[in-house]
Amino acid sequence: MKTCKDNQTLGNVSIDPLNNRIRRSPFWECSVKAGRKSYHLYNRMLLANTDENDYFHLKSGVQLWDTGAERQVEIKGPDAHRLVQSSTPRDLSEMGDDQCFLIPTVDQNGYMTNDPVLTKVAQNHYWLSVSDADLILFYKGVAAAKKMNVSIEEPQVSPLGIQGAKADELAVKVWGEQVLDIKFFRYKRVDVFGKPMILARSGFSSQGGYELYFEGTSRAEEIWEKLMNAGKDMDIKAGCPTQFDRIESGLLAYRIDITSDMTPFEAGLGRWCQMEKDFGCLAWSSLREKCNPSRQIRPIEILSDPLPRMQGPWTLRNCKGINVGRISSSCRALGYNCNAGIGLVDSDHWNPGTDLIVETQNGSRQAIVKSKFWARK
Amino acid sequence: MKTCKDNQTLGNVSIDPLNNRIRRSPFWECSVKAGRKSYHLYNRMLLANTDENDYFHLKSGVQLWDTGAERQVEIKGPDAHRLVQSSTPRDLSEMGDDQCFLIPTVDQNGYMTNDPVLTKVAQNHYWLSVSDADLILFYKGVAAAKKMNVSIEEPQVSPLGIQGAKADELAVKVWGEQVLDIKFFRYKRVDVFGKPMILARSGFSSQGGYELYFEGTSRAEEIWEKLMNAGKDMDIKAGCPTQFDRIESGLLAYRIDITSDMTPFEAGLGRWCQMEKDFGCLAWSSLREKCNPSRQIRPIEILSDPLPRMQGPWTLRNCKGINVGRISSSCRALGYNCNAGIGLVDSDHWNPGTDLIVETQNGSRQAIVKSKFWARK
Repeated sequence: MKTCKDNQTLGNVSIDPLNNRIRRSPFWECSVKAGRKSYHLYNRMLLANTDENDYFHLKSGVQLWDTGAERQVEIKGPDAHRLVQSSTPRDLSEMGDDQCFLIPTVDQNGYMTNDPVLTKVAQNHYWLSVSDADLILFYKGVAAAKKMNVSIEEPQVSPLGIQGAKADELAVKVWGEQVLDIKFFRYKRVDVFGKPMILARSGFSSQGGYELYFEGTSRAEEIWEKLMNAGKDMDIKAGCPTQFDRIESGLLAYRIDITSDMTPFEAGLGRWCQMEKDFGCLAWSSLREKCNPSRQIRPIEILSDPLPRMQGPWTLRNCKGINVGRISSSCRALGYNCNAGIGLVDSDHWNPGTDLIVETQNGSRQAIVKSKFWARK
Repeated sequence: MKTCKDNQTLGNVSIDPLNNRIRRSPFWECSVKAGRKSYHLYNRMLLANTDENDYFHLKSGVQLWDTGAERQVEIKGPDAHRLVQSSTPRDLSEMGDDQCFLIPTVDQNGYMTNDPVLTKVAQNHYWLSVSDADLILFYKGVAAAKKMNVSIEEPQVSPLGIQGAKADELAVKVWGEQVLDIKFFRYKRVDVFGKPMILARSGFSSQGGYELYFEGTSRAEEIWEKLMNAGKDMDIKAGCPTQFDRIESGLLAYRIDITSDMTPFEAGLGRWCQMEKDFGCLAWSSLREKCNPSRQIRPIEILSDPLPRMQGPWTLRNCKGINVGRISSSCRALGYNCNAGIGLVDSDHWNPGTDLIVETQNGSRQAIVKSKFWARK
């Protein structure tokens, strides 16, 4: 692919929001009416763009996020556990009935195909909340080849994020104290106009909060309004996943930071790879050989003034000018008064404190490898 | 998914063309500079939008189309033939070494996963020019499950369309009379600045023409300029696949007309399903039971005035008001002074001449099933 040399050229074009290929979640009109006007596409759906105000507001208030673009893959039937396990090196055998797992999914050679959140809806019944890719087709391929007895569908389920400092307060007001018992990456079913729906303690922010896996389309606008009204005295707003928060806290984006030529070990997801025993991941033996990566994701501080907006990844060089990696995401770390980057760095240069050079489209900058992401405990 | 009730809402939003998820082909800047300003996303790449002028120009002149968004899946290695064959009911055993095949690809149950053009690059070496979906993941799934010996990649190959009435004239001027020997859906390798590249007689228009499978990014702008200069006295323009031409001629769009709940038989692609013998399609036995569909794609003329722009599919009803199908694409048939639609119609109502009612978002219209698409011979 090409990095555009000429931002001016890019500024001249428009993308038609009326195109028939674009899908919209049942919360989308609510989100637009609440002020979200700028979008990008994610799983061929509209997902709102973030701004600096979102970041600061998240630290003090509460936000509703239309994250319906996080499509679910539903895998159900006698072979469901076996099929999901075939795609990931994370051991699912001890997964609790109320649990959500972040799982790296991999191809035959151990390269990343996605990084979904897996929810165990029931025994042999799973939802995978997928990053921007048709991961459903991988499962269809395995199921066809192995003649598995499963159904594989994209159900009408639209995650609605309740995120921010006052997320607990809002959820308690709507569903009572029971929500406080939900542990991180676990869920309870809560009542949504008479229907039990999954409310998980999860979400793509460092502030924490909940995700309601809203089923169907009927009464979507009513639940949005109900939450908005309940949050009136908590400074509630329509938000969206914020780049600033995710980069500061090292929440990786598939296709941006994690690419299909990376292993889970390179992506820093080694803790979700249980390699002692072959419990059914099709790439197990390939991955065994790749446990010790020669490059890995690292937090990178980029020095001095605020950065230009990235156009494609930026090359990382050492002091001799040799290419030693790339920066895939960067932003002003608004909470830390510096520039934060997500880097993929060769092992010779990944130790904290290593000095590097970043080639931005506007010239080079000094950079330094950090020991941990800014907002990570 | 939701159809937006309020076009006004849609009109208020914008999609950011600078988003990092959006990829651009090596011809893209040339295309923008030549006047293409409006785009949609296809395989996460920018693909130009069409207008009425494109249609008329295509009938008389010649156009270059940046169709780099038609990404290739490259399948190569000892099991390549077996892997590609596993995905499709079209018999590939007799495929010539210079041949391109339109193939329906299907999941375990015989439902459509894509409708790519398959090019046989060499023995056990294929490219699949895929419609808007990560079909690569299906092949990765099958290969992982069957432990196949193949590589499966997205190569840096960008199809460049040379389409329109004067496509032959232009291709002869650049590559000589040899191009006239290329039969429909066959290819020859032609010289592109010293490198042999595949030039196929194919393309997503009823006018016919060529597709150059340009490899790499280097000198992409030079080949664009070379063709543009060669075509100066042939009224050459930068174009793109035109909706008007494709609907008149019944060229179906995956995700719009063909959806993942349809079989190849329902999509009218039964002629590409060889069901006599099981030669390796994983869905063979499922498909055998689905050979006689109870609904199928049909050309539908929609009566009277020009139509509103579609927002989601339109329901088709019979004279009693019963739902008997849907219209997935529609446009003014510019060459025929009527409204053309692509319908999916139940068998009781699919005979030519059947009167139907179409529910557009602006009220209902009379419609009639046609015997063939307008521009089809």
